Amino acid sequence: MPANKQILLDNRPQGEATASNFKLVDSETPPLKEGEVLVRHHYLSLDPYMRGRMNDAKSYATPQPLGQVMQGGTVGEVVESRSPKFAVGDQVVGMGGWQEYSVVAGDQPGGIRKVDTTHVPLSHYLGAVGMPGVTAWYGLNGIIQPKAGQTIAVSAASGAVGSALGALAKARGCRAVGIAGGPDKCRYVTEELGFDACVDYKQHRDAQSLSKALKEACPDGIDGYFENVGGMVMDAVLLRMNAFGRIAVCGMIAGYDGQPIPMAQPQLILTNRLLVQGFIVSEHMEVWPQALQELGTLVGTGKLRPRESVAQGLAAAPEAFLGMLKGRNFGKQVVKLV
Amino acid sequence: MPANKQILLDNRPQGEATASNFKLVDSETPPLKEGEVLVRHHYLSLDPYMRGRMNDAKSYATPQPLGQVMQGGTVGEVVESRSPKFAVGDQVVGMGGWQEYSVVAGDQPGGIRKVDTTHVPLSHYLGAVGMPGVTAWYGLNGIIQPKAGQTIAVSAASGAVGSALGALAKARGCRAVGIAGGPDKCRYVTEELGFDACVDYKQHRDAQSLSKALKEACPDGIDGYFENVGGMVMDAVLLRMNAFGRIAVCGMIAGYDGQPIPMAQPQLILTNRLLVQGFIVSEHMEVWPQALQELGTLVGTGKLRPRESVAQGLAAAPEAFLGMLKGRNFGKQVVKLV
Repeated sequence: MPANKQILLDNRPQGEATASNFKLVDSETPPLKEGEVLVRHHYLSLDPYMRGRMNDAKSYATPQPLGQVMQGGTVGEVVESRSPKFAVGDQVVGMGGWQEYSVVAGDQPGGIRKVDTTHVPLSHYLGAVGMPGVTAWYGLNGIIQPKAGQTIAVSAASGAVGSALGALAKARGCRAVGIAGGPDKCRYVTEELGFDACVDYKQHRDAQSLSKALKEACPDGIDGYFENVGGMVMDAVLLRMNAFGRIAVCGMIAGYDGQPIPMAQPQLILTNRLLVQGFIVSEHMEVWPQALQELGTLVGTGKLRPRESVAQGLAAAPEAFLGMLKGRNFGKQVVKLV
Repeated sequence: MPANKQILLDNRPQGEATASNFKLVDSETPPLKEGEVLVRHHYLSLDPYMRGRMNDAKSYATPQPLGQVMQGGTVGEVVESRSPKFAVGDQVVGMGGWQEYSVVAGDQPGGIRKVDTTHVPLSHYLGAVGMPGVTAWYGLNGIIQPKAGQTIAVSAASGAVGSALGALAKARGCRAVGIAGGPDKCRYVTEELGFDACVDYKQHRDAQSLSKALKEACPDGIDGYFENVGGMVMDAVLLRMNAFGRIAVCGMIAGYDGQPIPMAQPQLILTNRLLVQGFIVSEHMEVWPQALQELGTLVGTGKLRPRESVAQGLAAAPEAFLGMLKGRNFGKQVVKLV
């Protein structure tokens, strides 16, 4: 069996997460039992939700156990199989974690799934045609429920979720408006992703100022909003929501290190009769097949052109992850292992 | 025609509303035109929403015009009629405003409606069997959508809306938990209104402390919450909401004078996958007949025993209104004119 390298959660963050929370270790891959498959990971996925799981706090997900391999999505290739369902050479997506190899039972629910890379590059199954894409799909269709002609806004617009949200909103005949950090990301959002406008939140010190910029980008107000960030950005958007607007709350990365992120004016929920709903995509497995099909078509036909930040080698994962939490990535953050 | 007395909005509040914002004037009731009815008001309704309308701010309702009679619900008796739909002696509910008499077209949509006082006292058509009752009904059935056995909490529980909410929740087999200010109100909420528990928010300085008291009152957490208050109370409840809980936002009286009422931890919406929705009952007219029927039955059968604070005479309306905004009323606040 091949030698393996793994990254474990060694200790929990005190406030901001740091590289010292992680530990890189060598290990062996165990011999396969009947029904099991050995997968060599080509890419592993880095996602904001992982930061929440590093804390030992009550949340929607159980905490990442200490001393265990960091959990997370992976794509790779079957290199050995004792399962009738998988053959050597199959390309698969799964939850292999921050390591070079994983062993998984071929018939385990939520285990691994074969993917077709004819029209969709393998790594995109961790992004636009994977969990982040389905997250955008569910927030848009399950919660925001947009009508053609409405204005839909999304924070972290250049990221894996935000870029998919924009393409899906455009496909429904909506005006898509992004919020992103810095001119490069904003240019990508409008020029490559096809959003109608993008506002650079880094140009604004407070919610009032950002809100004014949003007014220009959204002359008819905002009907639906997909929240990845929270804090000042959410306050600014709330000031621009139209009556009966709907907000899907997917993430509040501004508060992941424990910073207070109060909502300044919750009374706007009342005066504008807003609906605000939090969700986690893994609780809506029923939509995954339909969502993945639409997302695959959008990518395959070039209507969604996801961008990736690619870190090289397992050892680079912690720094890439910490950088992503600060917005240093550009598009979907992955780690290339092969 | 009889002499009339009216209370006008004379000027808008700077911060807290005061008696000097209002002006009492004498006037004449105009002669009836064909189709019109003259109503002598027996009671007028004082409701928290009126405070919002005193500001010249964008909100769900147009502002109360300056120099005009304060708008509001009234019950009374037809004393003169040139409408075939109404006879002298009919008891009616309408939006007559803060005055002793009003003239209204008998066929005006949303004008006046006959009521039956056989089992329901006239004034209750301004409260439990009126707009406040329907407000509770819509928030519970339209937004919270409770299941039997769930825990439903409501702030301002002894008030017109809160008391109806409790009776409706009990009728659906739920545990009803109130939040109210002071031991007298809490005793009334449990002993007379039949709530399972009531927490006195005045015994608590901050959301953490109130949240602990809520934990005792709600050992299985809170599944649905009806918000009348906002501020510290909302923060405390958010800490006790169960996964997939639902919050109907009806009022945020804590911020009606312009005080900041931030929501401290909006990330709880995400981690608990909550639905938070604002509403205004006048946008859901389709539920009124069904709601009024159920509320009338609850009152008629003694399952909902609404309490009233009754101010005497039109001139007492401003002080009664200002007292209600500070929670000095006990139950539905009305002004008795006859």
